[in-house]
Amino acid sequence: MEGEIRTDLALEMQERFTEDDVEVSGVALTEDFCEDGKMRVTKVEILDEHGAQVMKKPVGTYITIEAAKLFSGEEKERRKVSEEVGRQLGLLCADKKICQVLVTGLGNREVTPDSLGPLVTDQLFVTRHLLREYGEGFLNRQLEKEEDGTEVSLSAVAPGVMGQTGMEAVEIIQGLVKKIGPDLVLVVDALAARSVERLNTTVQLTDTGICPGAGIGNNRKSLNKESIGCPVIAIGVPTVVDAVTIVRDSMEGLLQEQGFEKKEIGLFLRGVEDMRKMNTMFVTPKSIDEEIHQMSRTISEAINYCFFGI
Amino acid sequence: MEGEIRTDLALEMQERFTEDDVEVSGVALTEDFCEDGKMRVTKVEILDEHGAQVMKKPVGTYITIEAAKLFSGEEKERRKVSEEVGRQLGLLCADKKICQVLVTGLGNREVTPDSLGPLVTDQLFVTRHLLREYGEGFLNRQLEKEEDGTEVSLSAVAPGVMGQTGMEAVEIIQGLVKKIGPDLVLVVDALAARSVERLNTTVQLTDTGICPGAGIGNNRKSLNKESIGCPVIAIGVPTVVDAVTIVRDSMEGLLQEQGFEKKEIGLFLRGVEDMRKMNTMFVTPKSIDEEIHQMSRTISEAINYCFFGI
Amino acid sequence: MEGEIRTDLALEMQERFTEDDVEVSGVALTEDFCEDGKMRVTKVEILDEHGAQVMKKPVGTYITIEAAKLFSGEEKERRKVSEEVGRQLGLLCADKKICQVLVTGLGNREVTPDSLGPLVTDQLFVTRHLLREYGEGFLNRQLEKEEDGTEVSLSAVAPGVMGQTGMEAVEIIQGLVKKIGPDLVLVVDALAARSVERLNTTVQLTDTGICPGAGIGNNRKSLNKESIGCPVIAIGVPTVVDAVTIVRDSMEGLLQEQGFEKKEIGLFLRGVEDMRKMNTMFVTPKSIDEEIHQMSRTISEAINYCFFGI
Amino acid sequence: MEGEIRTDLALEMQERFTEDDVEVSGVALTEDFCEDGKMRVTKVEILDEHGAQVMKKPVGTYITIEAAKLFSGEEKERRKVSEEVGRQLGLLCADKKICQVLVTGLGNREVTPDSLGPLVTDQLFVTRHLLREYGEGFLNRQLEKEEDGTEVSLSAVAPGVMGQTGMEAVEIIQGLVKKIGPDLVLVVDALAARSVERLNTTVQLTDTGICPGAGIGNNRKSLNKESIGCPVIAIGVPTVVDAVTIVRDSMEGLLQEQGFEKKEIGLFLRGVEDMRKMNTMFVTPKSIDEEIHQMSRTISEAINYCFFGI
Repeated sequence: MEGEIRTDLALEMQERFTEDDVEVSGVALTEDFCEDGKMRVTKVEILDEHGAQVMKKPVGTYITIEAAKLFSGEEKERRKVSEEVGRQLGLLCADKKICQVLVTGLGNREVTPDSLGPLVTDQLFVTRHLLREYGEGFLNRQLEKEEDGTEVSLSAVAPGVMGQTGMEAVEIIQGLVKKIGPDLVLVVDALAARSVERLNTTVQLTDTGICPGAGIGNNRKSLNKESIGCPVIAIGVPTVVDAVTIVRDSMEGLLQEQGFEKKEIGLFLRGVEDMRKMNTMFVTPKSIDEEIHQMSRTISEAINYCFFGI
Repeated sequence: MEGEIRTDLALEMQERFTEDDVEVSGVALTEDFCEDGKMRVTKVEILDEHGAQVMKKPVGTYITIEAAKLFSGEEKERRKVSEEVGRQLGLLCADKKICQVLVTGLGNREVTPDSLGPLVTDQLFVTRHLLREYGEGFLNRQLEKEEDGTEVSLSAVAPGVMGQTGMEAVEIIQGLVKKIGPDLVLVVDALAARSVERLNTTVQLTDTGICPGAGIGNNRKSLNKESIGCPVIAIGVPTVVDAVTIVRDSMEGLLQEQGFEKKEIGLFLRGVEDMRKMNTMFVTPKSIDEEIHQMSRTISEAINYCFFGI
Repeated sequence: MEGEIRTDLALEMQERFTEDDVEVSGVALTEDFCEDGKMRVTKVEILDEHGAQVMKKPVGTYITIEAAKLFSGEEKERRKVSEEVGRQLGLLCADKKICQVLVTGLGNREVTPDSLGPLVTDQLFVTRHLLREYGEGFLNRQLEKEEDGTEVSLSAVAPGVMGQTGMEAVEIIQGLVKKIGPDLVLVVDALAARSVERLNTTVQLTDTGICPGAGIGNNRKSLNKESIGCPVIAIGVPTVVDAVTIVRDSMEGLLQEQGFEKKEIGLFLRGVEDMRKMNTMFVTPKSIDEEIHQMSRTISEAINYCFFGI
Repeated sequence: MEGEIRTDLALEMQERFTEDDVEVSGVALTEDFCEDGKMRVTKVEILDEHGAQVMKKPVGTYITIEAAKLFSGEEKERRKVSEEVGRQLGLLCADKKICQVLVTGLGNREVTPDSLGPLVTDQLFVTRHLLREYGEGFLNRQLEKEEDGTEVSLSAVAPGVMGQTGMEAVEIIQGLVKKIGPDLVLVVDALAARSVERLNTTVQLTDTGICPGAGIGNNRKSLNKESIGCPVIAIGVPTVVDAVTIVRDSMEGLLQEQGFEKKEIGLFLRGVEDMRKMNTMFVTPKSIDEEIHQMSRTISEAINYCFFGI
């Protein structure tokens, strides 16, 4: 099928091929359910360049946690998502010796669906300055842990968006990484999904960094190990759907139902791509403010849980 | 043509009939251009019950100021929109003796496209407490006006949304009106439009109050002279398009281009109406934060200009 | 001793007399310690007009919870303060049948030490609209309680300050109370204390409402049963010390240490009262932002605990 | 006179010596009045190490603009302060060829009197990304200037405070400067003054950077040419007085009036220095929110005026 699929979720690219009954070489998929089926954890591995080209995403691991049902329930249930995200984050880091982490919350604090990153950085257990001031062992004493546990030095920054700063987020982070030398950069950002059902209920973790054009379209240079000079793990939550995508997908569904052929459908869809004004629009839930607070709490808890067990 | 058109702009309802080459009895339209054609002022008058039924809006006057070109230019140009909106607001009030105005900014301060009302109330020249403390003549002295000019006592409140307060905005305003007895309630709210081109470039003034279901769907009881007990003028700015509307309209356009017949098109469009999840979504520009600040400044300037000439 | 003592805490007025070894007729004091002495609960009862005149506060009950040590510890410890405040609030309400509560958060959201009230209203479990929409029994089902428990209808509003609205908070609340008819108005406000040690570690509950001139000086009319027309309980947290008070008290302490006599000291202190510019200043801790968030969480938890057991 | 004077204003250090009728070698003072005496511009030059030691500030130029009367008047008058600050800033830069400026707004956005820096960065005419995207000549065309005027590439960042980020502001700025290589770093920060009259009515410009312990006590490493590696100009506005300072100064004034001798007064003042809890407190005006917005607008206008003539 011709036409662009616009999504930051590897899982949604993968699903697209399943729809079309196509098997993709170079891409492996595993899935797992937990919490009585209320949470689905999917791992998409892009194994080689062929997979990367088809999936339009770099080679690497993409873990998706879907938990719509746990977010609509009690606080206790939401907390389970935090812990699972934290656990999966730990698995992605497992091969690295991590002493110093820099968390960067991308996005624009002033635009509700793009404020996820800055809101997460506000809620982290920032420790770098404490360890430097009070010395080794300080955190272990504070957290009542064994004296010889590793103490992660965590710092956090929300670099703002280019329209406000005149600098690309990548440039700011490159400067910081050179200066403070972390073992790991954790990037938190709002993503675009293809399906409205996934908005604010899904988390994607990946060791490939953030792709250009991600989120609601304000970042431009890739933020990855190559550009930054140290390992990068990205945590993303889809908070918007591109307006073009939603029109395109709705239309495709209806035309298929009416029995149109693929070629005809393709003609229609190209019409949608041409709607110029629509390219500057996005779709977001009406209750985005509450949802973004819920998700930012979940992600910050996951990070705190992964590195400090709290 | 079957199917719902969802818009808070009387002008867009009117246009719909023009598209279909239908003349509507009970509805009068006049239009006017100014600033070298960069600003269009349209007046839709719904004259009787027949007009009201067809237009799905109450009997009354609806003035729309469209000025996309003035918003993308310099500060000086934007200020011209403020003054025209202020002038039109003055015309709508011309038959009333106004000494005391209560401005209410509806909407949720935490959701960017819904924050127009609260942001406007933040920027008004609030005078009620000054006149009560310093007595008559105070404003005239402050503004260096003739001693016998009318001094408007202006108060302003952002009542919040029901999910935050547990009360409908109408209830809060009813209580306030009973207590302080204004001559006029001015309601400022974000609206839903049908056309993305109109978002954050258009202002609607009406003497009919605010219709139920307006904005992004959080208000429910009508806010008008009947429910409030004093004249109500509403100032609205479209900041979102309903997701269903945008899909529906895009699809209709494409199907018409392909030569489908009205009946067939109708079938498709009903399919869109049925997309349940989409009903909780809206479409908004990616640069909504800057645009909402620009529009809130424009509306507050218009109100200050209308009542104080500043 | 001549000279004004400026404090909103009845406890600090009481202490003043103890310092001077004076017993005040018409005033009763009891105190209680809990949590291994980390929390002190003091009840000052002003029993008659004589007591009221001496204490410069209306007849009624004033409960103070001091818990500095619990705020510097773990989350679990802070939560104990929430529960004690909630319990004491319940005792103050014990003689009333309460079905509908209106919480009003006074103060200016834009001034950090004055934002306590608005921040508390943001975090409450607002139920009025839910009970009206889903009917009786809804809350009990949600909270998994017995079907016949009382369900409190809670609404909440932050009316803003007079400089922003042109209206006194009392006027806005009077209007609301007439309209929605609550059984109890709960007023939350930032207070002024005399002692910097008490800032953001102390809560005062009183059934007398809020006195004029309270907080950092923006409220003016009393908010009590008489002015509002329904019982009023005020919850206050001292977040500032008047600049005049801090200078006066520091100076008095030093002069006493140096062996000056009361009369001489009085002369000095009158000098302080005359410092005009100082009257527009207040003193607040450098870490006020974190402290105000901690206290607003504590108070909102206390209210949720009192009325819903959550 | 013994005892610390705590102020970030060189002018207030200088005044202290004038009070004591002491002339300080190595320090030169000139003053100038404009706008009918409503604005005072004072230049303190610390010429050598002796001056630096006595003044407790580094060698360099300190320009103070005092304009209390212009801030209480009309918008037009306030705008004159912006232009004078912009003009003085231009004079401080006059010996440098400036093509690229990085503005850093220090301080904590969440604490009203410390939010000056971040608020200023929000309102700047940021151009770096525009010049990089649209090429040379773009700004001149936009601003309708001659094609061959210099176009300043301006970027802006609010790095946050150490408690939020785990990094010192200096570290973050060092990283950025290395990465983007500006010709000038402009640091905007809230300062501590000694006199409450100067709060939010005074601007200090200096080519020495920011001293340790400045503002309300959250910055620690010097931000100057030496530490940053490029010229630094600091723009500061006093928004708080240290609580210890205000008590100390009030007391000193009163004791002098009563005819006490210097030695006795010194004894008292040392008592004030010992008040431990007071060291974590600051004094700020009750109307700080409006004042900080007014001052942040003034400073951002001054920067825009200096570099772009707008």
